[in-house]
Amino acid sequence: MPTPSPDDRFSFGLWTVGWRAADPFGSATRPELDPVEAVHRLAELGAWGITFHDDDLIPFGSDTTARDAHVARFRAALDETGMVAPMVTTNLFGHPVFKDGAFTSNDRSVRRFALRKALRNVDLAAELGARTFVLWGGREGSETDAAKDFRVALDRYREGIDTVAGYVKDQGYDLRLALEPKPNEPRGDILLPTIGHALAFIAELEHGDIVGVNPEVGHEQMAGLDFVHGAAQALWAGKLFHLDLNGQKGPRYDQDMVFGHGDLVSAFFLVDLLESAGYTGPRHFDYKPTRTEDMTGVWASAAANMRMYLLLKERAAAFRADPEVRAALAVSGVDELTRPTLAAGETTADLLADRSAFEDFDADEAGERGYGFVALAQLAMEHLMGARG
Amino acid sequence: MPTPSPDDRFSFGLWTVGWRAADPFGSATRPELDPVEAVHRLAELGAWGITFHDDDLIPFGSDTTARDAHVARFRAALDETGMVAPMVTTNLFGHPVFKDGAFTSNDRSVRRFALRKALRNVDLAAELGARTFVLWGGREGSETDAAKDFRVALDRYREGIDTVAGYVKDQGYDLRLALEPKPNEPRGDILLPTIGHALAFIAELEHGDIVGVNPEVGHEQMAGLDFVHGAAQALWAGKLFHLDLNGQKGPRYDQDMVFGHGDLVSAFFLVDLLESAGYTGPRHFDYKPTRTEDMTGVWASAAANMRMYLLLKERAAAFRADPEVRAALAVSGVDELTRPTLAAGETTADLLADRSAFEDFDADEAGERGYGFVALAQLAMEHLMGARG
Amino acid sequence: MPTPSPDDRFSFGLWTVGWRAADPFGSATRPELDPVEAVHRLAELGAWGITFHDDDLIPFGSDTTARDAHVARFRAALDETGMVAPMVTTNLFGHPVFKDGAFTSNDRSVRRFALRKALRNVDLAAELGARTFVLWGGREGSETDAAKDFRVALDRYREGIDTVAGYVKDQGYDLRLALEPKPNEPRGDILLPTIGHALAFIAELEHGDIVGVNPEVGHEQMAGLDFVHGAAQALWAGKLFHLDLNGQKGPRYDQDMVFGHGDLVSAFFLVDLLESAGYTGPRHFDYKPTRTEDMTGVWASAAANMRMYLLLKERAAAFRADPEVRAALAVSGVDELTRPTLAAGETTADLLADRSAFEDFDADEAGERGYGFVALAQLAMEHLMGARG
Amino acid sequence: MPTPSPDDRFSFGLWTVGWRAADPFGSATRPELDPVEAVHRLAELGAWGITFHDDDLIPFGSDTTARDAHVARFRAALDETGMVAPMVTTNLFGHPVFKDGAFTSNDRSVRRFALRKALRNVDLAAELGARTFVLWGGREGSETDAAKDFRVALDRYREGIDTVAGYVKDQGYDLRLALEPKPNEPRGDILLPTIGHALAFIAELEHGDIVGVNPEVGHEQMAGLDFVHGAAQALWAGKLFHLDLNGQKGPRYDQDMVFGHGDLVSAFFLVDLLESAGYTGPRHFDYKPTRTEDMTGVWASAAANMRMYLLLKERAAAFRADPEVRAALAVSGVDELTRPTLAAGETTADLLADRSAFEDFDADEAGERGYGFVALAQLAMEHLMGARG
Repeated sequence: MPTPSPDDRFSFGLWTVGWRAADPFGSATRPELDPVEAVHRLAELGAWGITFHDDDLIPFGSDTTARDAHVARFRAALDETGMVAPMVTTNLFGHPVFKDGAFTSNDRSVRRFALRKALRNVDLAAELGARTFVLWGGREGSETDAAKDFRVALDRYREGIDTVAGYVKDQGYDLRLALEPKPNEPRGDILLPTIGHALAFIAELEHGDIVGVNPEVGHEQMAGLDFVHGAAQALWAGKLFHLDLNGQKGPRYDQDMVFGHGDLVSAFFLVDLLESAGYTGPRHFDYKPTRTEDMTGVWASAAANMRMYLLLKERAAAFRADPEVRAALAVSGVDELTRPTLAAGETTADLLADRSAFEDFDADEAGERGYGFVALAQLAMEHLMGARG
Repeated sequence: MPTPSPDDRFSFGLWTVGWRAADPFGSATRPELDPVEAVHRLAELGAWGITFHDDDLIPFGSDTTARDAHVARFRAALDETGMVAPMVTTNLFGHPVFKDGAFTSNDRSVRRFALRKALRNVDLAAELGARTFVLWGGREGSETDAAKDFRVALDRYREGIDTVAGYVKDQGYDLRLALEPKPNEPRGDILLPTIGHALAFIAELEHGDIVGVNPEVGHEQMAGLDFVHGAAQALWAGKLFHLDLNGQKGPRYDQDMVFGHGDLVSAFFLVDLLESAGYTGPRHFDYKPTRTEDMTGVWASAAANMRMYLLLKERAAAFRADPEVRAALAVSGVDELTRPTLAAGETTADLLADRSAFEDFDADEAGERGYGFVALAQLAMEHLMGARG
Repeated sequence: MPTPSPDDRFSFGLWTVGWRAADPFGSATRPELDPVEAVHRLAELGAWGITFHDDDLIPFGSDTTARDAHVARFRAALDETGMVAPMVTTNLFGHPVFKDGAFTSNDRSVRRFALRKALRNVDLAAELGARTFVLWGGREGSETDAAKDFRVALDRYREGIDTVAGYVKDQGYDLRLALEPKPNEPRGDILLPTIGHALAFIAELEHGDIVGVNPEVGHEQMAGLDFVHGAAQALWAGKLFHLDLNGQKGPRYDQDMVFGHGDLVSAFFLVDLLESAGYTGPRHFDYKPTRTEDMTGVWASAAANMRMYLLLKERAAAFRADPEVRAALAVSGVDELTRPTLAAGETTADLLADRSAFEDFDADEAGERGYGFVALAQLAMEHLMGARG
Repeated sequence: MPTPSPDDRFSFGLWTVGWRAADPFGSATRPELDPVEAVHRLAELGAWGITFHDDDLIPFGSDTTARDAHVARFRAALDETGMVAPMVTTNLFGHPVFKDGAFTSNDRSVRRFALRKALRNVDLAAELGARTFVLWGGREGSETDAAKDFRVALDRYREGIDTVAGYVKDQGYDLRLALEPKPNEPRGDILLPTIGHALAFIAELEHGDIVGVNPEVGHEQMAGLDFVHGAAQALWAGKLFHLDLNGQKGPRYDQDMVFGHGDLVSAFFLVDLLESAGYTGPRHFDYKPTRTEDMTGVWASAAANMRMYLLLKERAAAFRADPEVRAALAVSGVDELTRPTLAAGETTADLLADRSAFEDFDADEAGERGYGFVALAQLAMEHLMGARG
């Protein structure tokens, strides 16, 4: 059984193992977890990093003295364990003041407050050596389409993100922003609901060069979307700055299960993609230990996330190394797709003049080709199940 | 009861009223419809335009003589009725040759054939005076994530779209391309599954300036997304080149019901958005008359689409004109959102120095504000139901 | 504009207007609401009844003295206003002890405690004159299929419900039980996820004669199901003892919006069904005032629920009374469906001997019939929108 | 690698390997498959049985001579290979005559024709020795709730099923009926949408004793439901007469993928349930070889279904045999659930007198118990992945 080590770059949010398990229909089932204990326990389990929202570490409204004390204790725990804080994020959704959003709240004073809260936390992120600053706009949205002119809301959203990104540049911080999409919950419909919408929004920013995405497995699956397709598009655009691994069973409430405990097949192909694409960012788990678990269960679930990743990584490597798989990929034409459609130097005029491409092309015959995708999928399933050698 | 006229710019796909109603579990229930008859009947009902896939008008594999004859008859019908062909699209999904995609098929000869088929149809579109050329990549996708490296597939997709767009520019056609997203069906998962993904893809194109989107109401709703949010983001990006109006009941198979017969509240807010945003493109219906209907039902359903739009337009106008609504919008802060978060000329440093924005801001008190969104929504519902005068 | 009166039999859960609007990502935005105030305010708005979970009225763990005081104050408010308490339900989901369920918890001591809590509340329900006792088993479920043998869990569930039902009979209470189905949330998957599963379960009970269902609009829609179909099946089985009206936008988290603010078309047909079927139970609203609202918004939203119902009732009545609708129903064969398939006294042998039914039946010709359903649907939409007369 | 044999009782529908792969957006990609060839090929692959709709074997409208010839050839192939026909079903959905349903069509002549078609096929089923007669009412439904009074539709549905079941009894056939639920597609919403609704309907039948369900994995998952929960409820009610194994990726169109290629974790727990519950019915695959496949791919996909089942069966057996799993099940209280909540002979009065159950029960303390479900789930995942021993 593979065991995790800091080289695997596994990180966890403080709010994951620290979730007290209150939900819309029930109260907390677990005690508060001291962030310092979280750092130590995760380090013992083989994790590499820990991440947090400002309010996870420093209760909302703390004065500077209290704030500094919280940060100092935390930093000491990091130093002691060798853990890092690779990502920091700001809570712009929990307090009632953000009930209609932060950067897109209809209330301008709230928008200004939100910006200040975010900027303050950017400083802390830089101070702690984080390289990624995640922004989840969970309250930027609506329950009725009458509530906003959404084009105007996007103007405000752009203003907010550009202000934060501009500040990062002005300060010379070695930090990039990553937007986290989600389709709904807690708002009826959230702006930037998918990886695609977030990437499209980033393309409209002034400082989009330092802004990417932090997609979460379960969030895309809440929209019934293929997370591997989405992650691939983010990679293709050079924008996969960070990601949140967890598990989900399709369109329903945000489950935040252990990675792989939801759609296992998709998890296999995701690990395959990340590893084969040379993704170097953190493998960050954003999950919630089920409400039925006590603290023993919490640590077991943290370990389960890492074990799932490592097992899937082994399986994916074996899949790619198997000569039978390579042969099947060739039958399916997977390699053929890397060859451009136009030949080197071929112009559209050349293509139009190529009778073999159209006039003399036998579409019916070409339509008979079998792509062998099911056999390829079956090979993947057998590798995933450890059933091939 | 409002009646449609060409000024309303209503258009229909030939494949809508002409759908013979075969589905995955049953054979056709209606006879073939002559495109010329479609033109005449739609004109009589008050439509302004008709759109088509190449294969709707000219059977796949027709020789040049047959092709010309089909086009000539169709053009004559347009001339006779005053109808226009504002949009043309290419069928790159129906023939078996496209079973693994067109521009992203693993088979290079298929990709080349697809390009040729599209380019040929671009010429026809220009010849008929169409201003929009829609590309729906319904077969660009997969059932197993093993079937492609999706980053490579996006390379090929970009190559394909840029080739077509480059050709349009080279020929000097007054034509723009519009990509139509869809999450799934007929492929297990389709590339560019939502408005967002398509917009993000366009941002990576060489010729993205003449490429926008053609979102379909039901397609976004198949992913559980808010179509009004999506359309607003497309408008915000200057990319809403065309759109497909119809009805859908959430995540399930593509229903293509009459516009408004699915999520009526969303349809109301969509018409409100299009009309208030000054959208000038066609109001294009891409629906399927239910399989239970005979040709009488087909024409009744075509009329129903237009009637729904016009009724919703009346209702939306009354909503916006109602003084009580205006007061409710003010309470909700909808107007306040138009005011930038930073004052004119205000820098980030200024914001950081503004103690009223943070140090002296009473978040708890600000959190008590009621936004009145439910009352606003109720006003909208009452206008939608014609219950306010 | 129609105004509600007690004759309309509108009732609200104490937990609806009293919801403090904490959600999984944010803290409460509203103060506690005194149940006595809730009774008075709802009475002023025209409601007829108020319902509650034991813990809404009497905090979990109250001693007998405190309990009696809470009940006495509440009863006095009912007496003062003329409001009734037509339904009572037990909270078997909020406290951590129920985290793995109540009647199906793997922990037998929890199951016994749950039974006692429910029986105690049955006494209170009877004392207050309630006629329906709702049981929502929101924690009876699992996140992993390894967690239980679900056949055994159903044995325990049956034991639990039969014990409660048997007690009701033993005590001679004029009370019926109503099970409330829900597919998921807060558990990953909940037992008895739909109206159908609950009805099927009831058929296996010893005391099923006094057990029916309390379906909630949004719960069925979370599974993408047609609520009107489901309510009709419950009515058909004589088991629609109570129902929860609210709004939802398809498969996602449980939204509990105002009735009609989700799927308006379905709400129209539901009211049409209830009114035409002579449903005499309460029109009970189980919704949550959106978290953005203050107390003014809470009362506005309560009024909105009733107004929606009354408007829809008017519209449905007009739809049924319209001669054009009656003609369309005849075209569609809606009346023809009431005629049995076999003639009075006709045996299967007779049917087999009837050549007109098969040998001489022209299926192709019969397949040409148009059912006119789209025209009928359009008439319904126009009535719903108040656009006919 | 395990290999299938007739002892495994694997069966396939003729319409599965014989599907020509036309879909709503494209034409057939594969040639017709002779039923005789299907029998031989499936026998060679290790299958035990083959099933069919009447129209799969005998084209709609065949005369008696043609019909007899088709049946004779098929029967000869069965005799030659030793294959059986354990289940037969009737196509009551493909022909246009059934466009508004069969047993619930608004057209009475259609209902009578449907009954005759079904009865005729019952005779054939009995003649071929089938033990299960499946009825999928894919067209019994609606796109608008105006189209029927659904209570009346259920009356007609009951009349239809009871007529068929009564005929089976009258003829003394050793045959049971199995209803197949599906939420939607091809109708907008189908009656009896889930296992639960079908079971509830059966409870209202006169001849319900010989009527059970034939649930399909993908159909329940189209409603986002847990198939293992549903299958367990059907087993619990003694009504799991047959089942359809395949794969699906949540709420979307009916994908009919290879078993296990959709939700693999659910497939694991389903096989675990069937094997541990001693389910003795056929393991029937109702899938569609993906449209990209040629005939080689068709047979590979058929083999893949059986291989997945056998692998999962091995994994589930190892899971149940692992002492660590047994220990984890004890920690989770899975065994404790088998113990009734009331002691043997304990009355409700006894329970009410047991102070340890309520007055002296420390709910807060009991609420601290950790159920260890995540650790148990992780053990299941590791067995599924072949990662333990």
